[in-house]
Amino acid sequence: MRFPNPVAVKEIALRFGGRLMGDQEQYAHGINEIHKVQPGDITFVDVEKYYHKCLSSAATIILINKEATCPPGKTLIILDNPFNAYDALVKEHRPFRPLQQLISDTAEIHPSAIIEPGVTIGHHVTIGAETYIQSHCYIGDYSQIGSHVKIQAGTLIGTDAFYFKQQEGRYRQWCSGGDVIIEDHVNIGAGCTINKGVSGSTIIGEGSIIDCQVHIGHGVVVGKHCLLAGQVGIGGKTIIGDRVKIYGQAGISNNLVVGDDAIILGQSGVTRNLKSGVTYFGLPADEAKKQYAQLIALRKLAQKEDSNSYREDGD
Amino acid sequence: MRFPNPVAVKEIALRFGGRLMGDQEQYAHGINEIHKVQPGDITFVDVEKYYHKCLSSAATIILINKEATCPPGKTLIILDNPFNAYDALVKEHRPFRPLQQLISDTAEIHPSAIIEPGVTIGHHVTIGAETYIQSHCYIGDYSQIGSHVKIQAGTLIGTDAFYFKQQEGRYRQWCSGGDVIIEDHVNIGAGCTINKGVSGSTIIGEGSIIDCQVHIGHGVVVGKHCLLAGQVGIGGKTIIGDRVKIYGQAGISNNLVVGDDAIILGQSGVTRNLKSGVTYFGLPADEAKKQYAQLIALRKLAQKEDSNSYREDGD
Amino acid sequence: MRFPNPVAVKEIALRFGGRLMGDQEQYAHGINEIHKVQPGDITFVDVEKYYHKCLSSAATIILINKEATCPPGKTLIILDNPFNAYDALVKEHRPFRPLQQLISDTAEIHPSAIIEPGVTIGHHVTIGAETYIQSHCYIGDYSQIGSHVKIQAGTLIGTDAFYFKQQEGRYRQWCSGGDVIIEDHVNIGAGCTINKGVSGSTIIGEGSIIDCQVHIGHGVVVGKHCLLAGQVGIGGKTIIGDRVKIYGQAGISNNLVVGDDAIILGQSGVTRNLKSGVTYFGLPADEAKKQYAQLIALRKLAQKEDSNSYREDGD
Repeated sequence: MRFPNPVAVKEIALRFGGRLMGDQEQYAHGINEIHKVQPGDITFVDVEKYYHKCLSSAATIILINKEATCPPGKTLIILDNPFNAYDALVKEHRPFRPLQQLISDTAEIHPSAIIEPGVTIGHHVTIGAETYIQSHCYIGDYSQIGSHVKIQAGTLIGTDAFYFKQQEGRYRQWCSGGDVIIEDHVNIGAGCTINKGVSGSTIIGEGSIIDCQVHIGHGVVVGKHCLLAGQVGIGGKTIIGDRVKIYGQAGISNNLVVGDDAIILGQSGVTRNLKSGVTYFGLPADEAKKQYAQLIALRKLAQKEDSNSYREDGD
Repeated sequence: MRFPNPVAVKEIALRFGGRLMGDQEQYAHGINEIHKVQPGDITFVDVEKYYHKCLSSAATIILINKEATCPPGKTLIILDNPFNAYDALVKEHRPFRPLQQLISDTAEIHPSAIIEPGVTIGHHVTIGAETYIQSHCYIGDYSQIGSHVKIQAGTLIGTDAFYFKQQEGRYRQWCSGGDVIIEDHVNIGAGCTINKGVSGSTIIGEGSIIDCQVHIGHGVVVGKHCLLAGQVGIGGKTIIGDRVKIYGQAGISNNLVVGDDAIILGQSGVTRNLKSGVTYFGLPADEAKKQYAQLIALRKLAQKEDSNSYREDGD
Repeated sequence: MRFPNPVAVKEIALRFGGRLMGDQEQYAHGINEIHKVQPGDITFVDVEKYYHKCLSSAATIILINKEATCPPGKTLIILDNPFNAYDALVKEHRPFRPLQQLISDTAEIHPSAIIEPGVTIGHHVTIGAETYIQSHCYIGDYSQIGSHVKIQAGTLIGTDAFYFKQQEGRYRQWCSGGDVIIEDHVNIGAGCTINKGVSGSTIIGEGSIIDCQVHIGHGVVVGKHCLLAGQVGIGGKTIIGDRVKIYGQAGISNNLVVGDDAIILGQSGVTRNLKSGVTYFGLPADEAKKQYAQLIALRKLAQKEDSNSYREDGD
């Protein structure tokens, strides 16, 4: 997320009792978790194995729990609990504001959009021209719905990321500072769920079509003109290329990349990056032709076992 | 779908700039896609490999993009884009009429039916005696809900078919001219989705019971006294026999036939027609006893590999 | 379920035309199905193979369809149809009372709880301090929601158990006499479904976190500080230990026990009890290291087959 006005690193250090290293005159322009950082951003790290990744990321200001060598042009803010400071900064710009009425006064809905009765529309939502949203849908705060979008009954968009930090054996949810962007001409079925990004955007690309009961995790990017069949699930921050087809009940783990024009067959479970233009199948998903060869090999093996056991019985 | 009044083929040809072949005095009584056509119906074809199937189907009037031999008693209407004409004819009889209020004035609800607050009921819906529908349900246009039916909270019935035509790299949704029929004594859990047929009916047979988060695709027919456990998904136009049991998270592809009394075990992925009275398992689903034999053969193979590798280590 | 006042066995026998054996002066303090019975409870049995289990259970009063040896201190009530009597007794204490308004007058909601507009809250529901429930949620009768709980949009809690008895080829639903208990600090995503217990409670333990579109069957007990990822499904009466992690789209059959700290990987299908602290994978789920060994063995087998077939082609 971007800040409406830049914030001085000195002010942040003062506020959370942190110590500055590196450039002390820096201003923060936004805040993002490590997978989504841009130059000018604050991010945080508190686990030694991610120090390198974080320090060498695009982030300009790093909240960190130990002294480290500050890369040139950057600022470190050393704090006992960097996550708490990170979370407080996000919450300051995304204060908890439960809805008081079904449609927030701050929502901007194009006059040609059609919103059926019984739809909930959160704060700062925008809805484009000729978009049609059926009854019982929920469009959470900051969602941006394009034009000529169709969202069928009971679909829930812009709910919080399933993203937690464990502290002393308890789960503590990150404040979701991100949002959901539904591009133009997207068609979404009934009963789907699309979570907000933790700090960036969850995006459904132009012209993509989504069947019923599909779940899209936080920060996922679905490309343009994709097809997602019923009950598909996509884990957080996975990037799906353009024109990808994902068939019924397939699941894709988090933090993966699926190439353009890939085809993922029904009930497949994807656990690694997939190449463009290839058809995948199975759990864990592999190229379909390899999987079919394995299925045939297994069938033969079982038949051989079976005829052997008959022979043993017969002898 | 049936037309309220028959329409002359001459009128259709004139309207869409088409050329008539065969019987020029014919009247169309309805319109259906190829899987659901009945005598008197219009259908369309624009892909050469389906010409034969379409011309020899029950349809009486065929919208087609090339000259062909007209079977006796039928009428061809030759058009540049048969799909556009087909879609326009369906839309004319199913105009887009978003809901203005939670319960449409045209819905016919039996006085003994119980509709909890917060239920949406579309145009031309009928609901039978002693039926009970919980809060947050959505019953889309033209749905026919029988008597003594129970539908739990948040279930979404009669939403549009996930059925698209690709034109120049873009998906274009067919107008759903069909409906949903829920027969008497059906019991449906919370959070289910049941799509309309594209041109025919999606049917849930008498006395069937459905658990939560089940998805039923367009034009599916579920037989009588079936059991569908939680998170099951059934693809478009699949026909399920009577007394079939489908356990949790199983998925069934589109356009299949499952025989009476078949049993489909949990998480199975059905990709071909299934016989009556047989138990199936696995992905792709096969007879359970065959699958178990394969699982055992694979376990033995892995153990042999393992003991071999120990021997190699030891030598 | 517990009765508000004890009921004399003589009164029950008289009411349903049953014959008493054993202690005739007994009082029933509650009624539960066989998996949940406590001393003082009524339960029932009508299938010979469950006679022993039922007679030796904690139940004090047994509705039974045949004479049997009455264990000391217990009472048998012999009836033609014990289920009908059982069901009638449950219904008497849980009469059918559909909602007349979105929030029942009998609900007890802590003043610090935040309920967004468009939430349905049933009869006798309790909601604790600082709990936040988003729009379109449904909280069914008798649900007990703790404090500091967060429930995201469209989640449906306390709907009836998917639990049926077959009588003459028809399914007849048991009246759900149980409830749902959501303990403190639980965090539930959007579009989930959690069914009531048949006679006991469905429990989500303190501090557990649940992603979107998760289904929890009747009478399930989820331990404390568990993580359930998107689209997970858990079958009726399964007991999940503390700190268990269940990843996306995994399914767990009914009546199982999963030990503390177990990890169930994505899309696994659990069909038997799982040990504490072990990682499981696959369908049917087994220890992940065993499953990986089998995957490797199968891959090798298919490669061998493949090179053999090349050799055959080549020779």
